[in-house]
Amino acid sequence: MINLVDGKKLSEEILLNIKEKIENFNKEKRRPTLVVITVGDDPASKVYVRNKQKACEKCKINFINEIFDESVSRKEVSEKIKELNENENVDGIILQLPVPKDICGVEQEISVRKDVDGFNIYNLGNALYGNKNEKKLEPCTPLGIMYMLEKYNIELKGKHVVIIGRSNIVGKPLIGMLLNKDATVTSCNSHTVNIKEITSSADILITAIGKAKLVNSSYISDKTDVIIDVGINRDETGKICGDVDFEDITKSWENSTKQKYITPVPGGVGPMTVASLIKNVVMCYEKNKKI
Amino acid sequence: MINLVDGKKLSEEILLNIKEKIENFNKEKRRPTLVVITVGDDPASKVYVRNKQKACEKCKINFINEIFDESVSRKEVSEKIKELNENENVDGIILQLPVPKDICGVEQEISVRKDVDGFNIYNLGNALYGNKNEKKLEPCTPLGIMYMLEKYNIELKGKHVVIIGRSNIVGKPLIGMLLNKDATVTSCNSHTVNIKEITSSADILITAIGKAKLVNSSYISDKTDVIIDVGINRDETGKICGDVDFEDITKSWENSTKQKYITPVPGGVGPMTVASLIKNVVMCYEKNKKI
Repeated sequence: MINLVDGKKLSEEILLNIKEKIENFNKEKRRPTLVVITVGDDPASKVYVRNKQKACEKCKINFINEIFDESVSRKEVSEKIKELNENENVDGIILQLPVPKDICGVEQEISVRKDVDGFNIYNLGNALYGNKNEKKLEPCTPLGIMYMLEKYNIELKGKHVVIIGRSNIVGKPLIGMLLNKDATVTSCNSHTVNIKEITSSADILITAIGKAKLVNSSYISDKTDVIIDVGINRDETGKICGDVDFEDITKSWENSTKQKYITPVPGGVGPMTVASLIKNVVMCYEKNKKI
Repeated sequence: MINLVDGKKLSEEILLNIKEKIENFNKEKRRPTLVVITVGDDPASKVYVRNKQKACEKCKINFINEIFDESVSRKEVSEKIKELNENENVDGIILQLPVPKDICGVEQEISVRKDVDGFNIYNLGNALYGNKNEKKLEPCTPLGIMYMLEKYNIELKGKHVVIIGRSNIVGKPLIGMLLNKDATVTSCNSHTVNIKEITSSADILITAIGKAKLVNSSYISDKTDVIIDVGINRDETGKICGDVDFEDITKSWENSTKQKYITPVPGGVGPMTVASLIKNVVMCYEKNKKI
């Protein structure tokens, strides 16, 4: 049986819960506040920022967009970050990526305590480190994926999870978060030899590649019961699609007697990333305000 | 052909180079300084601390051992760390593990800039993060392993490295450091199912388990050309041995026409860990003194 992992629905539940929680913060003088810094005019970024804004509005979180022209200097962005780090009315700060090359890496200057994207090197280390009891800021996409797996009761202990893609913001932190749940984890990249042999040995396959519909049924075996598709690409007709050839995979599963799980694109990992961001903003606010 | 990866020899070369380097720091008022904090009377720890002291003496590095009774409070250790963090004559600080349960984790209070063991969560994140150009403090055992692989010209790009063991100080940082060299990496642990199937697919196998001679020829295939043994255990006769059944493995390689590499225990990874620590102390000193 094929189960669609409905990130849209799950994320809406999360946002609704947060909204109610924030409405109960009625003795507070101010609402949780997120500042998104954008540089330049990237159309995809605009869509992402708008989605974040909508989610904030849904939850009654203050949303501030600091917009810089793409000619801005690194120093100016750095100074803005410093100012926001020190501003006690700001709970979370993100620099919307991608940014011009000169500015790359400046997001590391965002305070570890306000790094709601979870991109700071310290927070990356924390995702890997095994202190299960501490509340920590984790990168949003991996956090959203872990939440989905939990909500669909997908066992991780002893399972072989194969991740394609080793970015600092998705693939690498996921490794740590999965290891800390007792999974066996393989991380593949563009240099991986015999990749289909490796992916076929996966119980759970996570794709974060950025290539439209690359992963079809030839990448998996009957063992593979769960596919999480992080990709957001456009197919040959311009339609949004993932890294996974959804139709081919689900067709190959049609006659399976096992429970199979797959995330759609759109409506899978994407909305969970935004919901995780909002969760992180509220976590920072609570720490900040010592609620 | 079987090649012994001689960590003892490599580490002596490193220490000799460092000694010469330090002798050239003749205009400096003081020598690089390492402080090792020990708690209690663990006999294995005493051996490790003595090895570190010997290495420091060889290189003309000041070695200071701050010894606490095992009844010491966490607060006292924490205060000592704070004092050493602020002492500008101290370049590197380590807390010799294991420590009593109450004190576990206090090593995270060691300044990121003086964390010559590379155990700080920020430095763990840094091992994972892909900024190749920045000089960073990396955990000593993984750093030593990477150095050995480099010195023996062992290609990592596209190779499948399987690591057994996922500790915060060996297995996890190694994942990142290997990924950043374009390897495909699998991390196994005690919950891994069909572990021999996975290890047999390794080009390079790294064991950090802590079980005497567990890994024998049934764990590998002809594909496996390199075995790095991080374990330091005692066999049934009380003799020091690794996680790998060295005799069984090398016997199975006897007729191979391929180049095979294996680290002995003792004399493999162990001395490289100490040499990496000394490298880290000198790196901190240089940053500190802006040499």
